[in-house]
Amino acid sequence: MRTRVTELLGIEHPVVQGGMMWVGRAPLAAAVSEAGGLGIITALTQPTPADLVAEVGRARALTDKPLGVNLTILPSINPPPYADYVRAVVDSGVTVIETAGANPEPFMEQLKGAGLTVIHKCTSVRHALKAERVGVDVVSIDGFECAGHPGEDDVPGLVLIPAAGDALTIPFLASGGFADGRGLAAALALGADGVNMGTRFMCTVESEIADSVKQAIVEASETDTELIFRPLRNTARVASNVVSREVVRILEEGGEFADVRELVAGARGRRVFEEGDLDAGIWSVGQVQGLIRDVPTAGEVVRRTVRQAEEILDRLSLSARDPQGV
Amino acid sequence: MRTRVTELLGIEHPVVQGGMMWVGRAPLAAAVSEAGGLGIITALTQPTPADLVAEVGRARALTDKPLGVNLTILPSINPPPYADYVRAVVDSGVTVIETAGANPEPFMEQLKGAGLTVIHKCTSVRHALKAERVGVDVVSIDGFECAGHPGEDDVPGLVLIPAAGDALTIPFLASGGFADGRGLAAALALGADGVNMGTRFMCTVESEIADSVKQAIVEASETDTELIFRPLRNTARVASNVVSREVVRILEEGGEFADVRELVAGARGRRVFEEGDLDAGIWSVGQVQGLIRDVPTAGEVVRRTVRQAEEILDRLSLSARDPQGV
Repeated sequence: MRTRVTELLGIEHPVVQGGMMWVGRAPLAAAVSEAGGLGIITALTQPTPADLVAEVGRARALTDKPLGVNLTILPSINPPPYADYVRAVVDSGVTVIETAGANPEPFMEQLKGAGLTVIHKCTSVRHALKAERVGVDVVSIDGFECAGHPGEDDVPGLVLIPAAGDALTIPFLASGGFADGRGLAAALALGADGVNMGTRFMCTVESEIADSVKQAIVEASETDTELIFRPLRNTARVASNVVSREVVRILEEGGEFADVRELVAGARGRRVFEEGDLDAGIWSVGQVQGLIRDVPTAGEVVRRTVRQAEEILDRLSLSARDPQGV
Repeated sequence: MRTRVTELLGIEHPVVQGGMMWVGRAPLAAAVSEAGGLGIITALTQPTPADLVAEVGRARALTDKPLGVNLTILPSINPPPYADYVRAVVDSGVTVIETAGANPEPFMEQLKGAGLTVIHKCTSVRHALKAERVGVDVVSIDGFECAGHPGEDDVPGLVLIPAAGDALTIPFLASGGFADGRGLAAALALGADGVNMGTRFMCTVESEIADSVKQAIVEASETDTELIFRPLRNTARVASNVVSREVVRILEEGGEFADVRELVAGARGRRVFEEGDLDAGIWSVGQVQGLIRDVPTAGEVVRRTVRQAEEILDRLSLSARDPQGV
């Protein structure tokens, strides 16, 4: 299944594994790439830029196919050394970088000079157009249903994807709400050149997180997420648990970020994924968990997503032409 | 393009015009049905049950194809005579009723006894399953992006449609966020048997509302809606205007329904549609307005939606099989 994105990234299938804090490590990314998708290692999950270079090396030992690194730039009191991480991405030898959060413009000359393909993830048409203007190669447009930060516009993919398609000239991925071939076929129909899947790949054999988290995703429904930080205009979609519900409660009653800082500290999220204590802290997950029922290998996810999309498109195309119908 | 819904309703195309207060009148419904979709007259837009029978007669003079009536049952201090409207629907001779709001169970025996096909609109999988259990023929599953009442779960169609498909046995329509053939193709790919479109049909030649409302929809983007009544757990998506923003502000500051009752009175909404004063009151519209750029005939909407969906499905099906790609 070829699209503008598979051509540009040099991959076989239009399926990209999204950047995920604490989740996007070498075995998962390598498995997605080896199956013909694009695997992405999350830069800031590695404690130092040197560790990121080593993690890419660990993936490189598992596949010689294209790999990417995600770098999410968020406002922070003690920001990580972003410029050093960018240099590590260049040094690591990956061919694709996915940027998210801040505008990637300050790094574009360096990244394009090094021959990298730049995917920029954003949550609105206006930000997508800005990314196109500063020279990114691909936009990943992230709808309201996504895990993590959906922005403040609350426009879901059914509307946001075609709106992005009407506005953009460059290729774009649809992100948020995708877990199977039904979603891939729908994304292509809406005008996207492929899909980005995060929650689906979290819940795979190669994903180096606690089994209890994967089991929680399998058991959860599409209604089991919370939107936190809305009053701070830094909304994030996370699993519904005692911590996230408490954060929502405190902020709705007029609390400040300082009042919840301890509850949402990164170390607590890491404990969820490493120790499997589902209530240790907040952790991002998408509404699409309601469609996830198993823990297959990442390669199987890529293959069955593409196979199912092809079957759906074939069946619908035939039925559209055949008066006997579906 | 045949599906389980076209077979069941006896229509040519899987495109249903949604029930819309002040908008769903005879000329629009007749134009949709005459073009091969299903047109729906909104019962409560008519001041009395007798007026509803007359309005169906007005549509019947324009088409002999299947027609439906929408009956939305909402909690109210002075409820309309719902039972009398149900009898009027039966007497009117339409073949389809779309119920929404309350559970249609109290009227099911009467409706099925009269040979009507019952479509029930709802916003969650659990309500869809309940509707299936009480014997409705078709569910119309309405995502977070819809105009009017999206419920309180905030699950968009990209996730809600396949989740409904996994749970339901009976045919179902996808509603909310659909305006063109990209959306119809996506809905079918996600497992629905057709689409329900409201905002798109509001903005057509035959829609008997003020031209300024249609022009406002053409000019608006996907971000120009407000969710009102959220603190009352009776959320409604309406056009962003001075009235809706004021309602949001009052309720966010702890106001009660009594504080906004005058602002949201039905008579004010009617003034928007009849007099074209966009700030006269609140009026429902979907985020999909961001994809609407013109005011065609309703028949042209049906025809081009189906044609575009067929073209997309053919192109994607071919490209899936052809290694040269899209």
